[in-house]
Amino acid sequence: MQISSEKVRKHVLIISADGFEDSELLQPYQQLNEEGVSADIASLQAGTITGKHGMEVKASLSVDEANPDDYQMLFLPGGKAPAELRKNQRVLEIVRHFFQQNKPVAAICHGPQILISAGVMEDRTSTSYPSVAGELREAGANYLDQEVVVDGNLITSRKPDDIPAFVGEILALLKEG
Amino acid sequence: MQISSEKVRKHVLIISADGFEDSELLQPYQQLNEEGVSADIASLQAGTITGKHGMEVKASLSVDEANPDDYQMLFLPGGKAPAELRKNQRVLEIVRHFFQQNKPVAAICHGPQILISAGVMEDRTSTSYPSVAGELREAGANYLDQEVVVDGNLITSRKPDDIPAFVGEILALLKEG
Repeated sequence: MQISSEKVRKHVLIISADGFEDSELLQPYQQLNEEGVSADIASLQAGTITGKHGMEVKASLSVDEANPDDYQMLFLPGGKAPAELRKNQRVLEIVRHFFQQNKPVAAICHGPQILISAGVMEDRTSTSYPSVAGELREAGANYLDQEVVVDGNLITSRKPDDIPAFVGEILALLKEG
Repeated sequence: MQISSEKVRKHVLIISADGFEDSELLQPYQQLNEEGVSADIASLQAGTITGKHGMEVKASLSVDEANPDDYQMLFLPGGKAPAELRKNQRVLEIVRHFFQQNKPVAAICHGPQILISAGVMEDRTSTSYPSVAGELREAGANYLDQEVVVDGNLITSRKPDDIPAFVGEILALLKEG
């Protein structure tokens, strides 16, 4: 079996780091993959990253290596990872690429913190983990307390319980696109 | 984007059920996928199955629908799922198919319980979760307390901490095959 030659083009770029919320990365990853939507995971460096609850995930590339042109969608899981990722200029550049190209961006829980730092939330309608609501409003966003909010290319959710609705809207947007 | 047309042939058939050990299913699933080794998940029925620690995974097909000829490898995660799966005749038939064809089979933790019920462990060298050791010996297996044991087509490990070694041996066997 020739493993490497069978690699296919990935649809989704996931950016995360140590301290990710385990379910918010792995459940959408698995559920999208079962629908034929594959993903690459990028982190500050390539290698293993560990979730808040101990799940180990392999990031196949660094954010410096990741080329956003290769992907149709960006996905930002939550947990503690976004607090680190929002300080990284390359991460913010990648986010702006997706918004400039009007390609889908999905963020859950603390994921929208990265969108705030990228300066893309003014006049956008969004949800997030409740503790991020104040910061979203200060960034000019219209905050809604809903399981999932779709505003054009942007899909946001609040917490792990929202994952089924979140994944549903991601699939709907990708199928439409 | 045409999601369905981009589905590719899957390499690995994962059989699990409610009560799976979350990390033992999802970590190998993600780590193999990052290496270009894709998997389908089958359960007693198609649909969502829930891990011991609450992770929800989508099984895209039932074991009755799964055709073992479509896969190069079988993977049996642990947790409480194997205690149910070992009672299902279709699951045991699928296991015997892989052994008869000498295709790779990987099982971790309580996963080897299914192999015992399928009657394929006589004179095989294997590990498992410690509580399964007695039953493996009664089935005629040579039990080793090691993080991973490779015996021909069969790869076994004991517990979540063994996952890195387990996935490493799976990849080595697939690349060789």
